Amino acid sequence: MLDDKVIGVLGGGQLGRMLLQAASPMAIPVVTLDPDVTAPAKQVSQPQVLPAFASSSAPLRHIDGAFTDAVKIRELARQVDVVTVEIEHVNVDALDEVANEFAATGGRSGKGIQVFPAPSVIRTIQDKYLQKVHLAQRGVPVAPFLPISADPHAPVSSDDPLASLVPAVVEAGNQFGYPYLLKSRHLAYDGRGNYVLRSGDPAAVRAALDALIPASSLTAPGARPLADRLYAEKFAPFVKEVAVMVVRGASGETRAYPAVETIHRDSVCHIVYAPLRPPVSATSGVGHAQRGERAVKGKSGDERAQDDAVRAIDALGEGAVGVFGVEMFLMDDGSLLLNEIAPRPHNSGHYSIEACNVSQYTAHLYAILGFSLPPIALTPPAAAMLNLLGHSSDASADFLRPDGVVAKAISLGAAVHMYGKAGCRPGRKMGHITVLGTSDADARRQIAELAALLPGSYAEPERLDECSPRRGFASAHPLVSIVMGSDSDLPVMKQAAVVLDQFDVPFELSIVSAHRTAMRMEEFAHAAAGRGVKVVIAGAGGAAHLPGMIASATSLPVIGVPVKASVLDGVDSLYSIVQMPRGIPCATVGINNSTNAALLAVRILATYQPKLQRALDDYAHTLEDEVLAKVETLEQVGWDKYEYKK
Amino acid sequence: MLDDKVIGVLGGGQLGRMLLQAASPMAIPVVTLDPDVTAPAKQVSQPQVLPAFASSSAPLRHIDGAFTDAVKIRELARQVDVVTVEIEHVNVDALDEVANEFAATGGRSGKGIQVFPAPSVIRTIQDKYLQKVHLAQRGVPVAPFLPISADPHAPVSSDDPLASLVPAVVEAGNQFGYPYLLKSRHLAYDGRGNYVLRSGDPAAVRAALDALIPASSLTAPGARPLADRLYAEKFAPFVKEVAVMVVRGASGETRAYPAVETIHRDSVCHIVYAPLRPPVSATSGVGHAQRGERAVKGKSGDERAQDDAVRAIDALGEGAVGVFGVEMFLMDDGSLLLNEIAPRPHNSGHYSIEACNVSQYTAHLYAILGFSLPPIALTPPAAAMLNLLGHSSDASADFLRPDGVVAKAISLGAAVHMYGKAGCRPGRKMGHITVLGTSDADARRQIAELAALLPGSYAEPERLDECSPRRGFASAHPLVSIVMGSDSDLPVMKQAAVVLDQFDVPFELSIVSAHRTAMRMEEFAHAAAGRGVKVVIAGAGGAAHLPGMIASATSLPVIGVPVKASVLDGVDSLYSIVQMPRGIPCATVGINNSTNAALLAVRILATYQPKLQRALDDYAHTLEDEVLAKVETLEQVGWDKYEYKK
Repeated sequence: MLDDKVIGVLGGGQLGRMLLQAASPMAIPVVTLDPDVTAPAKQVSQPQVLPAFASSSAPLRHIDGAFTDAVKIRELARQVDVVTVEIEHVNVDALDEVANEFAATGGRSGKGIQVFPAPSVIRTIQDKYLQKVHLAQRGVPVAPFLPISADPHAPVSSDDPLASLVPAVVEAGNQFGYPYLLKSRHLAYDGRGNYVLRSGDPAAVRAALDALIPASSLTAPGARPLADRLYAEKFAPFVKEVAVMVVRGASGETRAYPAVETIHRDSVCHIVYAPLRPPVSATSGVGHAQRGERAVKGKSGDERAQDDAVRAIDALGEGAVGVFGVEMFLMDDGSLLLNEIAPRPHNSGHYSIEACNVSQYTAHLYAILGFSLPPIALTPPAAAMLNLLGHSSDASADFLRPDGVVAKAISLGAAVHMYGKAGCRPGRKMGHITVLGTSDADARRQIAELAALLPGSYAEPERLDECSPRRGFASAHPLVSIVMGSDSDLPVMKQAAVVLDQFDVPFELSIVSAHRTAMRMEEFAHAAAGRGVKVVIAGAGGAAHLPGMIASATSLPVIGVPVKASVLDGVDSLYSIVQMPRGIPCATVGINNSTNAALLAVRILATYQPKLQRALDDYAHTLEDEVLAKVETLEQVGWDKYEYKK
Repeated sequence: MLDDKVIGVLGGGQLGRMLLQAASPMAIPVVTLDPDVTAPAKQVSQPQVLPAFASSSAPLRHIDGAFTDAVKIRELARQVDVVTVEIEHVNVDALDEVANEFAATGGRSGKGIQVFPAPSVIRTIQDKYLQKVHLAQRGVPVAPFLPISADPHAPVSSDDPLASLVPAVVEAGNQFGYPYLLKSRHLAYDGRGNYVLRSGDPAAVRAALDALIPASSLTAPGARPLADRLYAEKFAPFVKEVAVMVVRGASGETRAYPAVETIHRDSVCHIVYAPLRPPVSATSGVGHAQRGERAVKGKSGDERAQDDAVRAIDALGEGAVGVFGVEMFLMDDGSLLLNEIAPRPHNSGHYSIEACNVSQYTAHLYAILGFSLPPIALTPPAAAMLNLLGHSSDASADFLRPDGVVAKAISLGAAVHMYGKAGCRPGRKMGHITVLGTSDADARRQIAELAALLPGSYAEPERLDECSPRRGFASAHPLVSIVMGSDSDLPVMKQAAVVLDQFDVPFELSIVSAHRTAMRMEEFAHAAAGRGVKVVIAGAGGAAHLPGMIASATSLPVIGVPVKASVLDGVDSLYSIVQMPRGIPCATVGINNSTNAALLAVRILATYQPKLQRALDDYAHTLEDEVLAKVETLEQVGWDKYEYKK
């Protein structure tokens, strides 16, 4: 229970640092193993005065040594009750040996230690080829891949050992076409060990092999056999990169964090947006004219990504205990391919520290300490994370100037994390910033403001401009969707747009006809909630079916505007919209009164956005003042001369 | 900037601990001064390896010594750039001396130190009588109070020095009536130094004086003069205790956290609910029949508490930099009296760690480091904090049992804070738990579940049962308010209640007539948002003014149900409700269709409650299944024999 188990962590980088920071409020003692005495995690390590440490035979609060050093791993294991990792490139054989030897009688208490995740799971994940084989065999969708084995018939040449791999490389190209990816099976991360092979031309193949297998690595002691070095993967033309953190408890229960969109720069994580929104091309983005296939009814992209991620982690078996980062590709048809798994907290889950009720780090602690896992939810409507990647050798100059990104983040109320790394260098992860948003648009606007202050080329916009729509055009991240049955409704419906603009609510406006584009209407209604839309305003006249039909295909609140048609003074429209059957509500406003529809939408959003509620109060005062001004005019000029202006 | 200033903290208790935990993600170096080597803050103090400490002449990460020891304060000041406090009972004279002496040339850099809050501010606050005088003189409302001075005409008796105070004690009773409060001016907190004097009877007066001024304190070296020991305060018959955290920057800008309700047990903080809700008796609680005065239009109780708190901190002057806890009494008439100020983070602000975008600790760091203050907001709709107060001498037995409060908190997804204190004893603050809620009712339900697992008498319910209304009665913390113009509307409106019950949405139901209880209607509409209501459902028939009139006096979404009256088939009601003027929207549903009104309310709440959205999806599937079952029956029995059941 919290204070009666000491945790040992292999690795002391920023992930270890944040794990210790999560352990601190619960007073959970943690010992870190890392070669660097000023490693990020060690800067927050606990002092020896804790009772948990005092009772240890070697009362160190951290150990200086490599997480690949068997002796040091054993030293760590002797002082703790549970061993975990913050990096997968540990000495898994040593870890396995210690896990077995200490299973029942070793460790701090002499009653045995536990190692989570199990060494066998880490071993599977360490070899990216084996990882893919493991997952594919268990039905997890992955991009097609092939081993790159040495050709047994090729003449063995000690002068040119790489030549034996060429046939397999060319064969993969024949199967996959070009470009395809040649990847290192081991020690690959942040883009390292990945090579895009663009043709089967002998020179290109040699260049790829030389890049991935430096000559020095062939002669190093304990060098891996050539046949275990590489694998080939078909290029997946994804539309978005997606990640899901999954936590799995010792009893096998799992929880998935919201799926997020990850944006990379030079193969390193740059920005994370939570929650995941489908790409416009893969949905019936109402602002865009298209005739897609019928959207998959039922689960949203987010839920499918969560399901796939949980399945992948379950496929790792009983030893998969702790938190796992699952990276996926979202394809144009909405399907998902698993890219790779990290058996530890992950950069794509940093946002959870502030944006979820339980962070990925806290969840990892709960899992490895044997607690039952809590429900996990995103607290604000949206969140986003911006990595602070080094540009120069001076982190202060890069980020900490008075007019820099960190000062701006503080003024916005964002959360700032600095990892305390001694050396700053280009591309190094020095810290990150998390923003919370009242909407996707709000979170993205803050990220755009912050990213513009990043050093060097990191400041260049990338999918950032979306958040500032041109006036008169749809926001890419609308909270309100205004749709109308026909462009003849535009003069009436435009008033709603004017009001939403005035309240600075992101919205979209388009034509969706219940009768002439029935499929588009269904697609739109099914996809709306998953796209982040909170309220739909639908206007229609005559046999006005649009609002009610949309209401029947979404659980969002739908506001219907009865548009006055050429006959019956709009009463036909009103009755068509308001007299819905029990079970499917449609919020109806007055005939032609799309102003009130927009104000109602703002009132709905304001229930969870105090800022909008204050804006509504101001608006009410404006209305009051307008009438009172007329009272005054009436008193001054008299009723006989008073001119009513329409 | 973040890493170029070292902060020194006087005091190493849990507040210091949480301050260091807030400094950790930003890699801000902090040195703690406390006599206890295992003090809570020292358990999370940073190791010496940090560059900021290495450059110090005395590279300690914490100092063992009293925060009342002038030598130790000086030792701390030499190693840092900014000095702050986590407790107000420091040696303020020593601090003042160091602040002046080191102002321009002392400290770690030799370029001077800053002390926040200024010693003069701490001095004013240390003496609770001077604090009250200071605030009262500057127009901050406080309960009437009087000094308890020694009577200059009383015979001086070295045998009975307390006798000289008796006349002043009796005189205060004459002015204030009984009971009133006798309070120590110094070193009073958590109920210590407060005495409720119930009569002017000589024995009662002596008992009070003996309790507040132990004989031993009279002869101690450096004992304060008797005339500076006590003051008297009129008893304030408050209905709630309220607290607001205020952060004030060096440039004088201020930010107020949401006002919260604090519930004490034996004068120690027990539970905190955020945000503050007005007591039912002070509002037009719609579930209760009453004819109150017209509610104050404009600012809510929360906003007024924030305004008063900011005014009180501004009244402390330029040196008031950092975070301050402001405790207030909410009186039956809705007015507020300031009780006392803490010049530091405060127990009532712990909830902000998880429930606000910026915690009180982070805000304190920003203020004393000279950053511009960010906007501050509550992230979830509601939050609550439960203190873990020691019961026995064994914290594990009190809280950490597998079936104890901490394990339960983890399973709920709440945040657990343990302070790591070595010794547990009755009433000692050992930790706390913060829950986030989708509504007030949700947060209170979680607190009730947790409190029931507290040790000993802490488990006794206190204002906790409110959250479980009896079936058929109003919830004390409704998200939806159903009102109707007449009890004749009940058969129609009851359907809305049934639906809300089914979705487990807390609601209230009452009668509010636009025409017969116009004032009640206005009061209800004005107070609704401040009471935590998110949606109003109003039903009325004929000249159905209720929904629209309510909509004109609140910015909440109002759903109108046209009730069919005896003539015109409900068309009169429908037109009266739907045809609102531009500017005041009313969401209208079909005639008599209060089922849809409730479903619309659930859809509105579901926009920010994913759980409700899933429940709505399930509901939609049920409707579909019901129809499909009828399809099957129709096919089986044929249209001729099919019996339609109404």
